[in-house]
Amino acid sequence: MIASTSNPQVRNLLQLQKKARVRNGQDVFLAEGLKMFLEAPKARIHKVYLSKSLYEEKGAGFLRDLPAEIMEDRVFAAVSDTKTPQGILCVLRQFHYRLEDLLTKKHPLLLLLEDLQDPGNMGTIFRTAEGAGVDGVLLSKNCVDLYNPKTIRSTMGSIYRMPFVCVERLEDTLPFLKERGIRTYAAHLQGKNCYDEEDYRRGSAFLIGNEGNGLSRELSDQADALIRIPMHGQLESLNAAVAASILMYEACRQRR
Amino acid sequence: MIASTSNPQVRNLLQLQKKARVRNGQDVFLAEGLKMFLEAPKARIHKVYLSKSLYEEKGAGFLRDLPAEIMEDRVFAAVSDTKTPQGILCVLRQFHYRLEDLLTKKHPLLLLLEDLQDPGNMGTIFRTAEGAGVDGVLLSKNCVDLYNPKTIRSTMGSIYRMPFVCVERLEDTLPFLKERGIRTYAAHLQGKNCYDEEDYRRGSAFLIGNEGNGLSRELSDQADALIRIPMHGQLESLNAAVAASILMYEACRQRR
Repeated sequence: MIASTSNPQVRNLLQLQKKARVRNGQDVFLAEGLKMFLEAPKARIHKVYLSKSLYEEKGAGFLRDLPAEIMEDRVFAAVSDTKTPQGILCVLRQFHYRLEDLLTKKHPLLLLLEDLQDPGNMGTIFRTAEGAGVDGVLLSKNCVDLYNPKTIRSTMGSIYRMPFVCVERLEDTLPFLKERGIRTYAAHLQGKNCYDEEDYRRGSAFLIGNEGNGLSRELSDQADALIRIPMHGQLESLNAAVAASILMYEACRQRR
Repeated sequence: MIASTSNPQVRNLLQLQKKARVRNGQDVFLAEGLKMFLEAPKARIHKVYLSKSLYEEKGAGFLRDLPAEIMEDRVFAAVSDTKTPQGILCVLRQFHYRLEDLLTKKHPLLLLLEDLQDPGNMGTIFRTAEGAGVDGVLLSKNCVDLYNPKTIRSTMGSIYRMPFVCVERLEDTLPFLKERGIRTYAAHLQGKNCYDEEDYRRGSAFLIGNEGNGLSRELSDQADALIRIPMHGQLESLNAAVAASILMYEACRQRR
């Protein structure tokens, strides 16, 4: 039982919560809460930390023979990233997909995210992508860290199931996607066609830009088509996760 | 110039940031940032607070003869709800719409929100509602306070333009909507029809439930139809703001 917040494992967990550099150095990430524990692929779990209360409530069988440590409740509260901790935190090994893993289907549906900054938006996009049947997500290297605890929480478990690849420059992957017959659609305020006037039943990839600035000129210039989500009122733009969701679900609707 | 954080106006602003009770007692709310100031209806502005830096940068003309106070930058930082304050904060009078104000069109498109808890979701829904051409939003009284600073910020100005009414029980308003020929659609995991198989060109209202529990039985039982957003993968549900956005934009698509 870990009874002190100065325990080295506790100090390491706090670093893993806060710093992408530390997570990447150890090739792990944290996932907190019951749902995230129950849905985690067992082979990917490095260690499970439980609060004493939760351990006493659930019993040892709950841990499915996984390597685990029990913590005093107040120690657990100190490592938790949430205000009302559920008492369970997993350390998991990071994912390492290759671009080919996202392209196993004949007509893949992909999402390309450029410099997305908000952890909640990022997680919500992964969650919706799973629901809409997206085959994979490509992230530019300036996106918010996917293993940020708030992002992981917002994915609601989709992080375990949605393949993704982080690339240096999205521009460099577009020719590769074109070779595979995948059309690229840039969500853009100056888009000529309304988003529902395109046919997404073939291989398709949606390009979604940064929350404040939209897509870069370099990337949108290379897209096969600029598409627009029409807006009433005086609105300048939609939230990035909302825009991505509307596009993904339009593709999902057409593919049914 | 306000130079001290113990100034009574500063103390009042801090209360207005934190407490719905204080906001409602004074019948005002706060909106922070340049965009929220520039889009605010002039007649609704009670007072504007500026940081000294922003005042020196913009000059007195920027204030459009509105009642204003200048604050030392560090005092402004103390009343600001953001990490990197833009230096402008407005006190505005609250809105008081009647249900009739939401029903001025022949075929209104409405959104009914039951016990929505997340301020970011609430604001994002208002923002998307404006974009999708929704005519008004009805909120159950257990929803998160719409005047929460995080909600106001997430609306990106839509709070100024989207009519809304907060009601004791949404159930009690459904008969009134039915009388007006408005069909009610409950977003529900057990919905029989897929959301895109219904016709929303007539008067329509979407019912969206709480993030954790969905719609209450009492409310969904009274809806004209339960509709379902299909989901691939192992996902249990979509984010509430995403689900609302997909429905609103399907109605918007049909109405074009």
